Amino acid sequence: VTARISIDLNADVGERFGHWQMGDDAGLLEHLTSASVACGFHAGDPTTMRETCERALECKVQIGAHVGYRDLAGFGRRSIDVSPTQLHDEVAYQIGALMGCAQVAGGAVGYVKPHGALYHRCSGDSEAAAGLVEAVCAADSGLRIVGPPGSALLFAAERQGLIAVPEGFADRAYEPGGQLRPRGRAGAVLDPRSAICQAHEIVAHGTVTARDGSVQPLAVRTLCVHGDTPGAVELLRSVRAALERDGVIVERFS
Amino acid sequence: VTARISIDLNADVGERFGHWQMGDDAGLLEHLTSASVACGFHAGDPTTMRETCERALECKVQIGAHVGYRDLAGFGRRSIDVSPTQLHDEVAYQIGALMGCAQVAGGAVGYVKPHGALYHRCSGDSEAAAGLVEAVCAADSGLRIVGPPGSALLFAAERQGLIAVPEGFADRAYEPGGQLRPRGRAGAVLDPRSAICQAHEIVAHGTVTARDGSVQPLAVRTLCVHGDTPGAVELLRSVRAALERDGVIVERFS
Amino acid sequence: VTARISIDLNADVGERFGHWQMGDDAGLLEHLTSASVACGFHAGDPTTMRETCERALECKVQIGAHVGYRDLAGFGRRSIDVSPTQLHDEVAYQIGALMGCAQVAGGAVGYVKPHGALYHRCSGDSEAAAGLVEAVCAADSGLRIVGPPGSALLFAAERQGLIAVPEGFADRAYEPGGQLRPRGRAGAVLDPRSAICQAHEIVAHGTVTARDGSVQPLAVRTLCVHGDTPGAVELLRSVRAALERDGVIVERFS
Amino acid sequence: VTARISIDLNADVGERFGHWQMGDDAGLLEHLTSASVACGFHAGDPTTMRETCERALECKVQIGAHVGYRDLAGFGRRSIDVSPTQLHDEVAYQIGALMGCAQVAGGAVGYVKPHGALYHRCSGDSEAAAGLVEAVCAADSGLRIVGPPGSALLFAAERQGLIAVPEGFADRAYEPGGQLRPRGRAGAVLDPRSAICQAHEIVAHGTVTARDGSVQPLAVRTLCVHGDTPGAVELLRSVRAALERDGVIVERFS
Repeated sequence: VTARISIDLNADVGERFGHWQMGDDAGLLEHLTSASVACGFHAGDPTTMRETCERALECKVQIGAHVGYRDLAGFGRRSIDVSPTQLHDEVAYQIGALMGCAQVAGGAVGYVKPHGALYHRCSGDSEAAAGLVEAVCAADSGLRIVGPPGSALLFAAERQGLIAVPEGFADRAYEPGGQLRPRGRAGAVLDPRSAICQAHEIVAHGTVTARDGSVQPLAVRTLCVHGDTPGAVELLRSVRAALERDGVIVERFS
Repeated sequence: VTARISIDLNADVGERFGHWQMGDDAGLLEHLTSASVACGFHAGDPTTMRETCERALECKVQIGAHVGYRDLAGFGRRSIDVSPTQLHDEVAYQIGALMGCAQVAGGAVGYVKPHGALYHRCSGDSEAAAGLVEAVCAADSGLRIVGPPGSALLFAAERQGLIAVPEGFADRAYEPGGQLRPRGRAGAVLDPRSAICQAHEIVAHGTVTARDGSVQPLAVRTLCVHGDTPGAVELLRSVRAALERDGVIVERFS
Repeated sequence: VTARISIDLNADVGERFGHWQMGDDAGLLEHLTSASVACGFHAGDPTTMRETCERALECKVQIGAHVGYRDLAGFGRRSIDVSPTQLHDEVAYQIGALMGCAQVAGGAVGYVKPHGALYHRCSGDSEAAAGLVEAVCAADSGLRIVGPPGSALLFAAERQGLIAVPEGFADRAYEPGGQLRPRGRAGAVLDPRSAICQAHEIVAHGTVTARDGSVQPLAVRTLCVHGDTPGAVELLRSVRAALERDGVIVERFS
Repeated sequence: VTARISIDLNADVGERFGHWQMGDDAGLLEHLTSASVACGFHAGDPTTMRETCERALECKVQIGAHVGYRDLAGFGRRSIDVSPTQLHDEVAYQIGALMGCAQVAGGAVGYVKPHGALYHRCSGDSEAAAGLVEAVCAADSGLRIVGPPGSALLFAAERQGLIAVPEGFADRAYEPGGQLRPRGRAGAVLDPRSAICQAHEIVAHGTVTARDGSVQPLAVRTLCVHGDTPGAVELLRSVRAALERDGVIVERFS
């Protein structure tokens, strides 16, 4: 008998703002096991956050705090020179705010994942990563931290005694060094067929094939599919169906 | 033997934003028993909130969530036609955010008080008041609600089983009907001497003398001194000293 | 020989913000003669404004400043108690900002129209209307002012010697008193068939049939079709085609 | 007979936001010849901008557009990864907005100077500098550009045919390479005595003595004194008095 492989599927949700829509959250939540909810700094507003938590609870999807830079105009995708102290405080603020919204929806927050430019920064900047993790720890030491395997972020999480959850991306190309290919570069976002293949490779073999054909190790516990790409729901549905056909158990990490 | 009278003294603090200062929080916190901390919607930012909580804890001052309209440009003093649902969600968000900041400072939130135009609205608008109270209740049913005696807000708090804390103002004039004289009108803010007298009258006699000389009943458990008026620290110190000379116990409500 | 009737067709455009989309501006601009461009307070950002002006110029569509309350979270649709002085200054700021963006696109601003809750306020509040008009006048006394016929806004414009352009709505229901039925009420937004009929009635007969069946006079020089309603481009195309079939000349006001 | 030396004195003004104050603009404007007015992105709001323009006109002080990153929380002092295209558009927006406010005050804008992190970026990043200058050029090719001597910014200005105005700082230390010592480093801001000496050296000799004692050439046409440092008015008054005692003509550049 072999132990069956299990994987978590997460996506960014709750990225509306006021009258502006973004992504098909209702559709995504039907196929996810974890939902990274924007906390109002790069996207999201209190009503969107509360409604997204309610919908996640109905779908039995785990709620995570998708914390980002204070930058609605740039959707959190622009690097901003925020000091580690301010970063720590902004993360504490955002996690608390989502906890408040989750609570009125009858739920709780299970994990924290940085968004966009902050995700990128916390991968390599150990001071920023430590600031973020310290804020998470003070909020609730039972919270998990989601980030790239081998990153400064997961290293900081483990040092503080938090559970670190390594993450791979189904629909983003990897560079030979193992990093994500930056958005805006050609080929950064994969077509659906390639994304399904990459999901299979990551989950079944623990590797990813980089743009130059080299095969990199990539051991992950959750797979991300971006929620704001066109056809995201269909892609997510296909990825999940393909994984389940392979005998993989799709379930939330814990 | 007579039971001694006790009163709480509160003020608005944490109203800085980024590089902009407001009020002398360190000075105020030496004389307060409760501190209403801005939560980032009308004033305050995460670092200010965390630092204000730290300082309040050092001074053994109770932390309250001063929730307001999302209106930095208007400092929360402008009426905005926010729906009761959005209000409910924005209050849940702000309380959670302050809880997050209080927690990294090693403390907790003890009460909620609406700010500025929202305070005014919740005094009379029972739908808005019920929305606010419902959010408070979901966040933590042990939180107290501070508001004007006889207001829709305190009525809603009691209906939901929360402890309602009636509040009077030392440095604001009262109209014959018992309402605060609106800011911007002549004589709305009292001079220090009159404020000390009014504090004495409210605490010792449970009444306030309105602008027309009529005496109104005003039974309160906390007195507010505004933190952003010039000389606020000196006024607060004088009010507290005068009350203590009268034998009043100045202590936080609970 | 009879003089042929002419009418202008306008819609709200440039209502994107950062990564968030709103409406099909490219589609709308093919059928409009005037484009009311959001100026960054209730929607719009500098790049969106510049690109929208470029596209309007390509389509030979007149550019107007759609000025609103500073309220991205509420899309300018919530009443805010902004003082007439601040309103005046915020309008001067927004017109100037759009002029800056129009200029780098090689064009100029032809008119000013308030948006949402500010449109509603300027219809009846003569102090607010005068403040707005004064700012327009100082910016460029050749600018036209678009507003409801008989409104405080158009009255103020004429008093200051500006050209007032009365406006009707193709896709919004009218109340018996001649006001627009407020958004959010049942039946406030008309279905496409009714909108085409109403456009015909307004342009051909100078009247509108209110919800109670009463016929109101409504003499207008421009007709608005909302750009953010689903099917807005198709509706606009149909309205324009129907008017042209009737022999109406669709051309910008001047 | 020798030609007398002349110099312009500029400072940052209009940096209030809503209810938050910053600096003593009225005091500064009495001693300045040019006023760099914040345009609402890093500081300033429409009413502050209009009032600052009015006051500058009363004092016969030239009005400049102090354009910055969209970052009220960071006061424009944090580097943000804004694309050159967005930068271009945001500069066009801000210049236009200030022109709108200056116009209602009865004045006009004479120059453009980037603020904080944007000033730093445009010193060395020629793509950003070119974007900024292009926007200035489209707004009004008579506008001057203020920046560090030898910078990418002034080079871009001259390439586009704009008048470049080299600037020195009275109250900021210079590094051996000729750059400003970054804020936050020890010794970055000079004490008043040293600032007066440095102003004299720059204006009389066209040099500045760096922190290591080396003497750098520094040929400038305007001197900046920061408006938000404590004692800024007194410093400015002293610098101006000392220069005038030396026979220097203090007058606006043109």
